[in-house]
Amino acid sequence: MTDRTPLPSWRPGRARDTLLEFLDAARSVPQADRVAYFDNDGTLWCERPAYVQLEFFLSALRRRVADDPSIGERAEFAAVLSGDQHRVGELGLARVALALAALFEGFTPEAFAAEVRAFMATATHATLGRPTIATVYQPMLELVGELRRRGFTVGIVTGGGTEFVRAVSEDLYGVPAELVVGTLIAYDFERDRSGRPVLRRTGRVLGDANEGPAKVTNIQTQLGRRPILAAGNSSGDREMLEWATATDRPSLALLVDHDDAEREYAYAGRAETLTETEPITETASRLGWSVVSMANDWETVFSR
Amino acid sequence: MTDRTPLPSWRPGRARDTLLEFLDAARSVPQADRVAYFDNDGTLWCERPAYVQLEFFLSALRRRVADDPSIGERAEFAAVLSGDQHRVGELGLARVALALAALFEGFTPEAFAAEVRAFMATATHATLGRPTIATVYQPMLELVGELRRRGFTVGIVTGGGTEFVRAVSEDLYGVPAELVVGTLIAYDFERDRSGRPVLRRTGRVLGDANEGPAKVTNIQTQLGRRPILAAGNSSGDREMLEWATATDRPSLALLVDHDDAEREYAYAGRAETLTETEPITETASRLGWSVVSMANDWETVFSR
Repeated sequence: MTDRTPLPSWRPGRARDTLLEFLDAARSVPQADRVAYFDNDGTLWCERPAYVQLEFFLSALRRRVADDPSIGERAEFAAVLSGDQHRVGELGLARVALALAALFEGFTPEAFAAEVRAFMATATHATLGRPTIATVYQPMLELVGELRRRGFTVGIVTGGGTEFVRAVSEDLYGVPAELVVGTLIAYDFERDRSGRPVLRRTGRVLGDANEGPAKVTNIQTQLGRRPILAAGNSSGDREMLEWATATDRPSLALLVDHDDAEREYAYAGRAETLTETEPITETASRLGWSVVSMANDWETVFSR
Repeated sequence: MTDRTPLPSWRPGRARDTLLEFLDAARSVPQADRVAYFDNDGTLWCERPAYVQLEFFLSALRRRVADDPSIGERAEFAAVLSGDQHRVGELGLARVALALAALFEGFTPEAFAAEVRAFMATATHATLGRPTIATVYQPMLELVGELRRRGFTVGIVTGGGTEFVRAVSEDLYGVPAELVVGTLIAYDFERDRSGRPVLRRTGRVLGDANEGPAKVTNIQTQLGRRPILAAGNSSGDREMLEWATATDRPSLALLVDHDDAEREYAYAGRAETLTETEPITETASRLGWSVVSMANDWETVFSR
């Protein structure tokens, strides 16, 4: 095609070969069916030591508590402010996340997005010594770009909050809001004093948290196109990766293995909200997915 | 810009002037915010004497009844087969629509889309003497094309079934599946005999029918971007049009007035599922929307 080397941050090896073979094979797929979905946390950017979304909510909570310390006494908030993962686990991450999301009850979509962007403009990673927005994985950005050059539609399918990710998805990945599917907070339709419509965030989650099988049903209902490439890093991505490859067409399931304690973190991918017994890397080898070793397959890990 | 005349099927007049002024003013809006949503039935294509989707379901029902006449005895089916709108009205269109949608319970998304496309390939309009796919409004196709040339993202926000419209939206309007928001049927995530994931349509509607205020909340949750142009033709579009113009930016609400008994139909736009007392054309003049007279503003009505 050109003499440009694609995927420069991917080291030569099986993962890169598999990707390049898939990209070539996908030329035979009609353009409308060239669709790729990526999990976000741990797949497109760093999710340790804590989800960025959790850091965002924590920062909002700390500001509220500074104004009114009694807010911090609520069990969910006390647990998360203590930094004790065991206390959070006892209450359940879903319950804690819902309590945190409710900090923005009554916000319009625009006001919520502005809060996220203000946070992201200055947030820094706890240990990596870099801005949070620069914990995006450079090899994944290259893959997203290469897919687009080949006529793919690229979306994000995240367990995190849809509106949180939408607030940054265009800037970080070039993904427009309508191609982001995550966990949704319901809105109320209201009218302001002059009678004009206004949307306000509620404290209710719409449907199920976007993990596991829900990723598949939510892709179909909200995006309507099935992927031929799906990338993830945890058991919450399992069904989406299986679905992408349950086809006779060229397809690819990509699993990021966090095995790089030196440059990032080393841990087994696991969705806190699901009970999976099989490690996802074993599922991957059993089902023939492409496992990406962060330590071995990536020459560069982070963007910028 | 160019010497090409935009919107050739729009007759000179106030509606066309308003459109051209809006298109010019929208250049000042950042591209990510140049978003336009169109209602489908009665706005992008003909909805009389019956919704195309209803014709599709009726055709499927007639085939089932030919195989097994007892199916036609169910109250909802007997009413709709009788062609007596009064009987359908007594049961409620929502109940009848749900019964019809359940004819495809168990279908995969791919199989359902194939049925829609097979129907559309041969369907003809009851009175207009043209294929159903050629009851798309030529002036609206020109507007959609002009919006895209100016960097707009164009979506469809329909009271009809999301998956029905998605099956034809790319071919008819160049709108990809993820930019179609309508009334959603839930899916079940299942596994086939070899353990591969498969989605199957249920008989359940997800959330509310996509009419009225639900159009606004569903746009935000499923698309995440607010329109600066919204076009509709009935009371079911009212809140969406109000929302599009509740901004200080350049914006436009467009209402198609079906006043052309000669070339199409003459009727007042009204969503069957809502109880509105004010005729939507009066709402339009009260709120300063642009009312498009099919009889006066369109030189050509239909495509092809």
